[in-house]
Amino acid sequence: MSDPKKGRILLAMTGSNPRPWYELLSQSREVVTEPASPDDPSITYAVVWKQPRNLLAKLPNLKAIFSVGAGVDHILVDPTLPDVPIVRVVSENLTQHMVDYVLWRVLDHHRQGMLYRAQQKRKVWHEPPQRPANDISVGIMGLGELGRAAARALLVAGFRVNGWSRSERSVPDVATFHGDQGLTPFLNATDILVVLLPLTEQTTGIVDYRLLKQLRKRNGLGGAVLINAGRGKLQKDADIARALDDGTLKEASLDVFEIEPLPKTSPLWTHPRVFVTPHSAATSDPSHLVGPMLEQMEAFERGEPLANLVDRKAGY
Amino acid sequence: MSDPKKGRILLAMTGSNPRPWYELLSQSREVVTEPASPDDPSITYAVVWKQPRNLLAKLPNLKAIFSVGAGVDHILVDPTLPDVPIVRVVSENLTQHMVDYVLWRVLDHHRQGMLYRAQQKRKVWHEPPQRPANDISVGIMGLGELGRAAARALLVAGFRVNGWSRSERSVPDVATFHGDQGLTPFLNATDILVVLLPLTEQTTGIVDYRLLKQLRKRNGLGGAVLINAGRGKLQKDADIARALDDGTLKEASLDVFEIEPLPKTSPLWTHPRVFVTPHSAATSDPSHLVGPMLEQMEAFERGEPLANLVDRKAGY
Ligand SMILES: NC(=O)c1ccc[n+]([C@@H]2O[C@H](COP(=O)([O-])OP(=O)(O)OC[C@H]3O[C@@H](n4cnc5c(N)ncnc54)[C@H](OP(=O)(O)O)[C@@H]3O)[C@@H](O)[C@H]2O)c1
Ligand SMILES: NC(=O)c1ccc[n+]([C@@H]2O[C@H](COP(=O)([O-])OP(=O)(O)OC[C@H]3O[C@@H](n4cnc5c(N)ncnc54)[C@H](OP(=O)(O)O)[C@@H]3O)[C@@H](O)[C@H]2O)c1
Repeated sequence: MSDPKKGRILLAMTGSNPRPWYELLSQSREVVTEPASPDDPSITYAVVWKQPRNLLAKLPNLKAIFSVGAGVDHILVDPTLPDVPIVRVVSENLTQHMVDYVLWRVLDHHRQGMLYRAQQKRKVWHEPPQRPANDISVGIMGLGELGRAAARALLVAGFRVNGWSRSERSVPDVATFHGDQGLTPFLNATDILVVLLPLTEQTTGIVDYRLLKQLRKRNGLGGAVLINAGRGKLQKDADIARALDDGTLKEASLDVFEIEPLPKTSPLWTHPRVFVTPHSAATSDPSHLVGPMLEQMEAFERGEPLANLVDRKAGY
Repeated sequence: MSDPKKGRILLAMTGSNPRPWYELLSQSREVVTEPASPDDPSITYAVVWKQPRNLLAKLPNLKAIFSVGAGVDHILVDPTLPDVPIVRVVSENLTQHMVDYVLWRVLDHHRQGMLYRAQQKRKVWHEPPQRPANDISVGIMGLGELGRAAARALLVAGFRVNGWSRSERSVPDVATFHGDQGLTPFLNATDILVVLLPLTEQTTGIVDYRLLKQLRKRNGLGGAVLINAGRGKLQKDADIARALDDGTLKEASLDVFEIEPLPKTSPLWTHPRVFVTPHSAATSDPSHLVGPMLEQMEAFERGEPLANLVDRKAGY
């Protein structure tokens, strides 16, 4: 039932499969994957993942850009981006996936999955000391939609939780820190670091050797642990490898990397204390996200405000 | 400050280290690890794990037996057991460990840990389809202290939860089933089976091939999953291996086995879809359990009733 009077959606996705998005969006609106010309007047919305640079610059009737992901760094890197509102994903379904991932990885490090798997290979029946969850402090960098939901789940699972954000935030039962001056005390009180920051100018490369050195190590885990489910460019891959090798880090779970797919030559692939997933901690599921996206367009056209808008100056 | 007027504790543990129990108990009471004679009148309590048979039969002043574990099958196998109350462990610390374990294993199967680890070995960057937790039904056999706590944590993590018990039970947000007639409908609605039953005459060998066949397989996991953190003799090791090999089961996490330590010859050690832990899901921690045990003895001597008593006829 696509309605031509409503204008067209430009679906511009690279590095991710646009097909399911196309099929679902085009049930309600006309969708194109390329504008007829750089100044195609028929296009009113863009739905994008890593859109080609310049593509959106001159569309005269573009009203808003919708990110198919929670992060928008992939959109903002384009210096020719027109000055229209950018809507990002906030969805129970996506949040659920991320909470799953964080709980899963924290528990696997806490319960010594790597050690048990190595023991099983050698048929070793041995029980290492095991601390209870409430002896372990998980520190979450980024107390946004995902960080706060992860904090709640970790608290229910029995962990202590610290959180770090840009502005001051209060989250029930979480010890919160903020800004530059809050970073060192936050790290010093953290055994397992979970990175759920957006990638901005301020956060690029923040997870470096110096930062990892500040994590708490006198804990029942036998060393600090890093989990990054934010963005790869938040971290320095080489610094993580170095920190693992010199004992600064005990183990790491990495869902994101400086270069993706992770190059075959990266030592992180084969490091015995690194667990790699292919940027799949919380993948956007079009069957859950397209409906709300279309509803937002309808509501906007009735004069209602757009929700989940990006602050372009802040970069997220 | 052990007080001789209070009588002695007989600490009788085999297959587990008695030393930390001895040290903590003997700070308050006199502790022996063997009676002076089969009818030693000085012994008033026994604290036991797999006590040698006959050891307790003739102690004339034995007032109660304390299990160092939540399960008491290791005590009740002794046909000469005297007719005194048996107290089992119910402790927040133990429950926390078990909840950790169950969440950890459910999440590792749900989030396809085995697949990702195999992919990493081959440096494969590939994202399989991933269902959200609320598409998965976890079925818990045994809705006791541990089963109910595991259910609560799984619900918060987003899973659907079914439960099966002997008597009818109502647990918030859990679909409950009970008794023989409830077993098949419970299994038919379950994707991931978590066994937290006590070992009794009725439950011995219950997790056999026929039972596993009844689990739901048309789920987003690509097959049914078994997690046993109860007792090894609840299951038939050989049936589990068969079920894994013919596709009845996709994967299993086993903390307990028919024979422990698991014999080196068992195919479960090397099965690529089995995760083995050495009966360490929730190990009793004397630093958390001895205090409450001593308090129970004091309270009992003041005339208060003992808590967490075993129903000897039911066998748990
Ligand atoms: N791996 C995956 O599959 C996957 C999936 C989805 C999302 N992600 C990543 O997860 C990120 C977080 O998502 P979200 O929805 O939770 O974002 P969000 O709601 O925008 O929250 C961002 C949080 O980061 C904090 N922050 C931003 N800049 C900071 C700085 N310079 N210093 C300290 N804190 C800073 C913010 O602080 P304030 O509270 O003060 O604003 C906020 O708490 C996304 O940006 C994306 O990169 C990854
Ligand atoms: N692997 C480890 O490290 C570890 C550590 C601790 C404990 N455990 C095991 O976990 C078990 C459970 O502990 P818990 O504290 O939760 O025990 P619990 O409070 O006694 O609960 C036992 C549950 O099992 C049910 N049940 C017993 N017999 C049954 C039968 N024939 N059919 C159906 N349901 C039956 C009971 O039903 P009702 O509700 O009707 O009574 C109850 O819900 C222990 O017995 C022990 O074997 C293992």
